[in-house]
Amino acid sequence: MYAIEAIQNLINNSFTKEIDQIKRREPSGLYEPICYALQNGGKRIRPTLVLLGCNLFCDQIENALSAALSLEIFHNFTLLHDDIMDKAELRRNRPTVHRKYSENTAILSGDAMNILAYKYLCRSKNTPLLQLLNLFNQTALEVCEGQQMDMDFETSDEVGVDEYLEMIRLKTAVLLACSLKTGALIANAPETDTQLIYDFGINIGIAFQLRDDLLDTFGDRNTFGKNIGGDILCNKKTYLLLQALSLAQGPTKSKLTEWIFKKEFDPQEKINKITAIFNQLNIKESAEKRIQFFHQKGLASIEKIKVPNSRKEPLYQLISEMIERDH
Amino acid sequence: MYAIEAIQNLINNSFTKEIDQIKRREPSGLYEPICYALQNGGKRIRPTLVLLGCNLFCDQIENALSAALSLEIFHNFTLLHDDIMDKAELRRNRPTVHRKYSENTAILSGDAMNILAYKYLCRSKNTPLLQLLNLFNQTALEVCEGQQMDMDFETSDEVGVDEYLEMIRLKTAVLLACSLKTGALIANAPETDTQLIYDFGINIGIAFQLRDDLLDTFGDRNTFGKNIGGDILCNKKTYLLLQALSLAQGPTKSKLTEWIFKKEFDPQEKINKITAIFNQLNIKESAEKRIQFFHQKGLASIEKIKVPNSRKEPLYQLISEMIERDH
Repeated sequence: MYAIEAIQNLINNSFTKEIDQIKRREPSGLYEPICYALQNGGKRIRPTLVLLGCNLFCDQIENALSAALSLEIFHNFTLLHDDIMDKAELRRNRPTVHRKYSENTAILSGDAMNILAYKYLCRSKNTPLLQLLNLFNQTALEVCEGQQMDMDFETSDEVGVDEYLEMIRLKTAVLLACSLKTGALIANAPETDTQLIYDFGINIGIAFQLRDDLLDTFGDRNTFGKNIGGDILCNKKTYLLLQALSLAQGPTKSKLTEWIFKKEFDPQEKINKITAIFNQLNIKESAEKRIQFFHQKGLASIEKIKVPNSRKEPLYQLISEMIERDH
Repeated sequence: MYAIEAIQNLINNSFTKEIDQIKRREPSGLYEPICYALQNGGKRIRPTLVLLGCNLFCDQIENALSAALSLEIFHNFTLLHDDIMDKAELRRNRPTVHRKYSENTAILSGDAMNILAYKYLCRSKNTPLLQLLNLFNQTALEVCEGQQMDMDFETSDEVGVDEYLEMIRLKTAVLLACSLKTGALIANAPETDTQLIYDFGINIGIAFQLRDDLLDTFGDRNTFGKNIGGDILCNKKTYLLLQALSLAQGPTKSKLTEWIFKKEFDPQEKINKITAIFNQLNIKESAEKRIQFFHQKGLASIEKIKVPNSRKEPLYQLISEMIERDH
């Protein structure tokens, strides 16, 4: 069995090797931006989940390495295209691909990454390929559906907490769940177990995104990578805002709506005022409760998987880091 | 054995059914533009090639229908994203997807179409799935490489006829070749024959694109769908211009370069003047010769395939229509 650090080393070494290969391909205008996107210093959570999902059921994890790369490449492809759509300038403190190169480059290199993700998935040896592909196809479409819902939310006045949870299930959770299940499928795990680990991933994924929402407003400026209050400034319909809108009444509701519609304002004042309303409505506590709910629901699934508890330890460790993080 | 018309009916009926399915999916903001893009009134050459490639070796072509849809969806995905990159306003006399909806919609719906192409490919029954996928992965990446080369050409002064032929091989020919080989693989054709039909497709594909270049300048205004001279107006580095640049000397060369660099001009005058230079250099005849060369080279491959000549008839018919067309 592998410790998390060993798995992460395996992934990082493998990526270094593959990026080196991709860098040599022509035309460089297509492949160089792909390497730039993949060398983003991210935590590579999805490939780690693939290998942990595999290692839960089997000691040989080499067969899952190619699928692990595939899911990380796919994830980075979605970030790349999302950044164009959001007109984002920075990703992890570096210029986004469409800023560094051009929008056309970002579109086309992203397309090539989507195809590369399939190419790496198809390299998986000794696996039920059709099952892997069916899962991946469905997941990839769902991620697009989630992104579309997220864009639709921007102009809709009728978004509730339930729609929001469905959106983050599609946009974020299914890919984490798919990563785990992909690893389990490659390990030839029993079907019940591959479904349990998928359900685990969905719930953990939702908790993970809710933590992200929470940190964007209540995180520590020194440890959280982005500026605190970014979601508030652009009226992003996160769990916090949607929950506040559903709970607020009377003058509190008026004040909240007023700040949302205000065209000219001091940014820090807007952040302070809306955070104060969140505090008044106990939004932070409500979000923490939801996170606990999904975390526990996820754990209930994984507990049903009949492998020794010691094998589940690395997975528990990663999940705690993902959900209980402060940055 | 099927006649071309029967195959085209099969494809059109199948598309009508599938588009109807896709139309019902949510969120509609993602799936409606996909249906719009697929209902473009195009000739659906690629799915026709898949079924003809299959029918050459076997009477049952139903197994190839899903792959046929896949290749048409992929082709339309590339058109959709290319139109964003080219800032094209119209495609087949209708607003392009990014014009009708928005650029973000065009990016995301295109991404979903790329994934849908894989989904339909994976539905192919009784086939060597890994072989289909390896071929498709390679082809899809090559199409991206061709598009990147095409974009690189816009700002490069060192494009020759050979680089151009390599670019259209990647951007256009490999997908036609892949379509034919996919059909042959599904029919379980011998490996030599799947390679021969692929080579046939490459050469036919290059001839097809050269015909397109030729028609853009020398086509009949009444039958050709686009305005005559569009390539000339934007200095597009087609076979015609590149061949002219390599042949022109002295004052002819000066006149040609002058027209290319001119910032202000009467469009029709530019078209007339450059066409006159093409005529002076016999560019039309040179292009016709190249088209014949690739056409014959393609035919030489298909003649080696050991099936009765009568089985090849529908394929010969389609290819003639593609390469000898006047619109």
